[in-house]
Amino acid sequence: MLTQPNERSLFRPDGAYLIDIIDQTLLPHELVRVQLRSMADVAHAIRSMQVRGAPLIGVTAAYGLALAMLDGSDDEQLQLAYDHLLATRPTAVNLRWALDEMKSYLQAVAVEERLSAALSKADELAEADIACCHNIGLHGVEVIEAVAKERAGRVNILTHCNAGALAVLDWGTALAPIYQAQQRGVDIHVWVDETRPRNQGAALTAWELHRHSVPHTIIADNVGGHLMQRGQVDLCIVGADRISADGYACNKIGTYLKALAAADNQLPFYVAAPTSTIDWQLLGDNIPIEERGAEELRVMRGRTATGEVVEVSLFSEHSPVANYAFDVTPPHLLSGIITEHGIVQATQAGLETLR
Amino acid sequence: MLTQPNERSLFRPDGAYLIDIIDQTLLPHELVRVQLRSMADVAHAIRSMQVRGAPLIGVTAAYGLALAMLDGSDDEQLQLAYDHLLATRPTAVNLRWALDEMKSYLQAVAVEERLSAALSKADELAEADIACCHNIGLHGVEVIEAVAKERAGRVNILTHCNAGALAVLDWGTALAPIYQAQQRGVDIHVWVDETRPRNQGAALTAWELHRHSVPHTIIADNVGGHLMQRGQVDLCIVGADRISADGYACNKIGTYLKALAAADNQLPFYVAAPTSTIDWQLLGDNIPIEERGAEELRVMRGRTATGEVVEVSLFSEHSPVANYAFDVTPPHLLSGIITEHGIVQATQAGLETLR
Repeated sequence: MLTQPNERSLFRPDGAYLIDIIDQTLLPHELVRVQLRSMADVAHAIRSMQVRGAPLIGVTAAYGLALAMLDGSDDEQLQLAYDHLLATRPTAVNLRWALDEMKSYLQAVAVEERLSAALSKADELAEADIACCHNIGLHGVEVIEAVAKERAGRVNILTHCNAGALAVLDWGTALAPIYQAQQRGVDIHVWVDETRPRNQGAALTAWELHRHSVPHTIIADNVGGHLMQRGQVDLCIVGADRISADGYACNKIGTYLKALAAADNQLPFYVAAPTSTIDWQLLGDNIPIEERGAEELRVMRGRTATGEVVEVSLFSEHSPVANYAFDVTPPHLLSGIITEHGIVQATQAGLETLR
Repeated sequence: MLTQPNERSLFRPDGAYLIDIIDQTLLPHELVRVQLRSMADVAHAIRSMQVRGAPLIGVTAAYGLALAMLDGSDDEQLQLAYDHLLATRPTAVNLRWALDEMKSYLQAVAVEERLSAALSKADELAEADIACCHNIGLHGVEVIEAVAKERAGRVNILTHCNAGALAVLDWGTALAPIYQAQQRGVDIHVWVDETRPRNQGAALTAWELHRHSVPHTIIADNVGGHLMQRGQVDLCIVGADRISADGYACNKIGTYLKALAAADNQLPFYVAAPTSTIDWQLLGDNIPIEERGAEELRVMRGRTATGEVVEVSLFSEHSPVANYAFDVTPPHLLSGIITEHGIVQATQAGLETLR
């Protein structure tokens, strides 16, 4: 089920010195592709969230480092580009992971060969990501199939934010098991959290599930707990932006609340993420949480009755806004972590098996 | 701190056969008053949520029954009006309570005197509501003062939806203790949940807190758990639409998630509500939950850069929506119920002391 290039969140035309992305800030109203031709373009795309989703941020940053080589590729320029790209988003650890991979690889390459080597290496990381997410899907679908075997009828899966093909390439992380289940004919239905303030669920997850004909329903972020209380959710699968070495999972703000509700209703709650999401240096919940601007909550983009896409302000500027982008779910609320190498317990011992 | 009539959510001009309300669907963008002159006007106002908030729904319905007497006031007409108004919203029990009060009172009044008697009785219920909420404030402020004594600095209170002066009259329920604390000079700050899908927090609570100069910050519904984990919330106070005789509290969808987070972080979580919110016939969580239309989630009202107020659609109609308006928080997650007669435990024994 590889997506078509015109739907793929990111690709590099053969031999080109640019990457081509979907501007995710314009979805679901407009499907607009943007060409990024420089490191500055890439940094802007990451910061403004034209590209978002932890794995996609990593791959995009890798291409950003490659494009930086267009302007010079000695060690100093390499380090400057690395620092510049690393500063675009503070929470997702895949960003650092991808930049580290690129830098250590390029340092061993002659300066004059770094541009083409960097582009090839970034292509390789993109391909590896696709394979990785495919494997996450193969492991994760077993959880869904197990639920389907236990009971008659549809399996209801709740997800938060977008950890789908838009967040990675072709498969996504949290949505990879769902796409696998669909391919295998499991009767599934996805509850899609709207995911305020940026509405990645309603705008992105619902958009891609619709295009892949996966049955789904959009709900306000407030609704999931009630659905769990009334037996309308069978399991939850979400992505992650950083996982500590002892299993604390940092993901889109609001994930913690759903994990609490799942635990209160004895429902499985899984995080699906590549092992590159694990921060081996980190123990516990001491993860820097990005604060973003007030306008993300105050201003919404939508289509008027006449079809025009406009931004509207929802409330007055008199009232201050706090906009934390992520929260941390403690390991005791997680049923397991679905990785490309298998499902492990959210504990230090469980994660160590992946090293 | 009685609000001025032009800010009061509902009033009846002396001797008039109408009531005057704020159309809350237009806030915070426009402050528009509407005159309701018939039972049909009242039923429309309740159903369309021009008036909302459990106690205000009750008082408005009482006036609706009075206005129905304009068209005839025999027992059959009284019963028809009662049934029509009761059907406007299924969850809030104050609606039934107020209509029962009106009907049993009017049945003992001669038919030709029922119109003026009904208007006087509705005025009386409105006055009683103000006194009731004032008393909720006096009891609830003790909880806030107790927190303020324990520690230096500001007391941070989280609230969900709008249970303020707009939801009742002059004081509100959940906001009554907050307004009292402000009058007593306690250093407070309120975290205001946006409260999707209708945004009563961002649109109404923030609007009235700003007008009363209470420090506050608007947050997405997803944020409260994170703030509690990081020690930035001291207590939570919310309203209720119905409370079972054994302490299950039905309130705006999403309340349950915040109560779980408060319990997980050992923080007090109070429901503030008049005793008319208690459904003495009900045990457990078997409360009918209103489902509302998809457009509440899909369509948002906001102001464009040029100042025009427009409705925009946030996502495509391809994706279905489920829109449950309330959820039920079990009693073990509640620290207590703040009523006009004092604070009681959320247990059958605790509530019985109020009968």
